[in-house]
Amino acid sequence: MKLHTFPTAPSPRRVHLFLAEKELEIEQVIVDMRKAEHMSDEFAAIHPDCTLPVLELDDGTCLSSCAAICRYLESVQPDPPLLGSSPEECARIDDRDRWIEMNGLLAVMEGFRNVAPRMKDHALPGRRPVAQIPELADRGRERFRWFLEDLDAMLAKTEYVAGEAFSVADITALVTVDFAQWGLKVPRPDELTHLARWYQAVSQRPAIKACD
Amino acid sequence: MKLHTFPTAPSPRRVHLFLAEKELEIEQVIVDMRKAEHMSDEFAAIHPDCTLPVLELDDGTCLSSCAAICRYLESVQPDPPLLGSSPEECARIDDRDRWIEMNGLLAVMEGFRNVAPRMKDHALPGRRPVAQIPELADRGRERFRWFLEDLDAMLAKTEYVAGEAFSVADITALVTVDFAQWGLKVPRPDELTHLARWYQAVSQRPAIKACD
Repeated sequence: MKLHTFPTAPSPRRVHLFLAEKELEIEQVIVDMRKAEHMSDEFAAIHPDCTLPVLELDDGTCLSSCAAICRYLESVQPDPPLLGSSPEECARIDDRDRWIEMNGLLAVMEGFRNVAPRMKDHALPGRRPVAQIPELADRGRERFRWFLEDLDAMLAKTEYVAGEAFSVADITALVTVDFAQWGLKVPRPDELTHLARWYQAVSQRPAIKACD
Repeated sequence: MKLHTFPTAPSPRRVHLFLAEKELEIEQVIVDMRKAEHMSDEFAAIHPDCTLPVLELDDGTCLSSCAAICRYLESVQPDPPLLGSSPEECARIDDRDRWIEMNGLLAVMEGFRNVAPRMKDHALPGRRPVAQIPELADRGRERFRWFLEDLDAMLAKTEYVAGEAFSVADITALVTVDFAQWGLKVPRPDELTHLARWYQAVSQRPAIKACD
């Protein structure tokens, strides 16, 4: 298998942090997003939606959802488990990971794509032109602040975002918070102390520090 | 475990069709969305986001993502498998299911929530007020048409949306197509013949007919 990727972009970073925590190395094909290589006919032939990352399996199957890629990688190398062990723990992590994606990451992406000049006519992923809607930039920032408040409340109850163990959901949350800092210019509010405690612990993990 | 639900709404319907295909019966608690019972303080204490469905496990864990709920139910009753068997098949189904959710179901929901009069100030799920953006109604319809074109192209190659076997991804796609008919007034275009063939086969499955 091989990973089509551009490691510093937010979505690919989710997979790279996952690989780093697993100490798993796989073949990489760099697709330079700064040169819009992901929008080329060549890459569209691999993945018509033109998003990154894409995990190409040996049978030719191409996976483009970060979560589906991580789930497949977990089946390839189960240890350390990042998607849970018991059915209940797996369900909690899956549910929380999706909650972070829908309420946090999508909010930041929506805001960023509707405000960044280079995203003009790319308000949604893909090659079809989609005009920016400036109201969505403001709404994205507001949604992201709500997300941080809710996440802080969750972290008041548990060590990590989906329970007492580090999981893939922490990776999704970390990527979301970091993306918002540069993409939306929304820093973490100091008063969210549980979030601050969690951010410090997760961002300082050896695998994550080594990966960035 | 028990399912907090309002069976005719699109998201709960995903879980009900999944249960029907599994021939699995679980305790249900009806939360009447027509009376906005899901927005009540009582329900917010169970699930602060105030969305349906919610699967409450015996240990008190509440799952609110349809896909996470279905995955947990698959672990409770593996047969018939609706999430795949081999790691590669599971990955293909997971990836396609998420693609349908992001590009189809979210497009329809976005369109519906930004045009329906009763969704005023509820352009996003939850109790926080979010104003409608009329441009998103038109964009939702356009995105949904693109989704149908892409889905038709996929169904030109395979019997079901994620391969040669019926899966949870077909349920998500069916719910999306039906929701668009009443929510966005976008019917299935007759010229998408692969989609028509698939829709006929899936909507006429005994479990699905019996459920609706």
